Amino acid sequence: MFSSCSNFNKEVEEKEILDLLGQQSLDWNTGNIDAYMNGYWKSDKLRFASGDRVNYGWETTLGYYKKAYPSKLEMGELVFSEIVVDLTNSNSATVFGRWQLTRETDMPHGLFTLHLKKFPEGWKIISDHTSSAK
Amino acid sequence: MFSSCSNFNKEVEEKEILDLLGQQSLDWNTGNIDAYMNGYWKSDKLRFASGDRVNYGWETTLGYYKKAYPSKLEMGELVFSEIVVDLTNSNSATVFGRWQLTRETDMPHGLFTLHLKKFPEGWKIISDHTSSAK
Repeated sequence: MFSSCSNFNKEVEEKEILDLLGQQSLDWNTGNIDAYMNGYWKSDKLRFASGDRVNYGWETTLGYYKKAYPSKLEMGELVFSEIVVDLTNSNSATVFGRWQLTRETDMPHGLFTLHLKKFPEGWKIISDHTSSAK
Repeated sequence: MFSSCSNFNKEVEEKEILDLLGQQSLDWNTGNIDAYMNGYWKSDKLRFASGDRVNYGWETTLGYYKKAYPSKLEMGELVFSEIVVDLTNSNSATVFGRWQLTRETDMPHGLFTLHLKKFPEGWKIISDHTSSAK
């Protein structure tokens, strides 16, 4: 049997999660993938899924991003929208929303579902499932 | 402030969730979309996301499935694999895995992230994010 008890302030936790996403888009838009990656759980168990492909691990995910977005030109301007935070308890949440990159020649866009856990150092994304317009 | 306390048997809950997915694939493979839809939360708040598109509502999702898969030919044989259940507390869970349809002329496949809640009538999928091979 497992047991859990917790008290938490929903608004405070949701704000921390939204702040994490806000910081990620700021870091992305200054071309700083390393800083952007601070939003992710630094673990071999981090899961990053996109299309038909799943990567496990923080280092692997960092490598994926750096290969897919080698310069500010490919990174473009990231905007998250229609964000919905669902706090399941004091230390677990799911987040759903839209992402869009504005680049010189195109505007890739799609949806994301995140699963976050709260660690002593704060909220971190432990799984990310992204899909794109076809 | 919100408060939650719970006791639960992890293995029992995980088995119920896996049973739900097993029943869904059985129902799909007999061509019964209505029965398949029993796995989803019958609410206007059910979220179904795929590619760049998000639908809200059980009825809308049923309509999507019936339009996209009008007969057994389009439905093919559904197999779920590499399923990972993450029980976040006694009444909330996320599930990640692969899906594949085997059809006469093609084999569409991809990944899914589900968010489930436990209701008095049992576990139900409250959000589904699906992505496909490009």
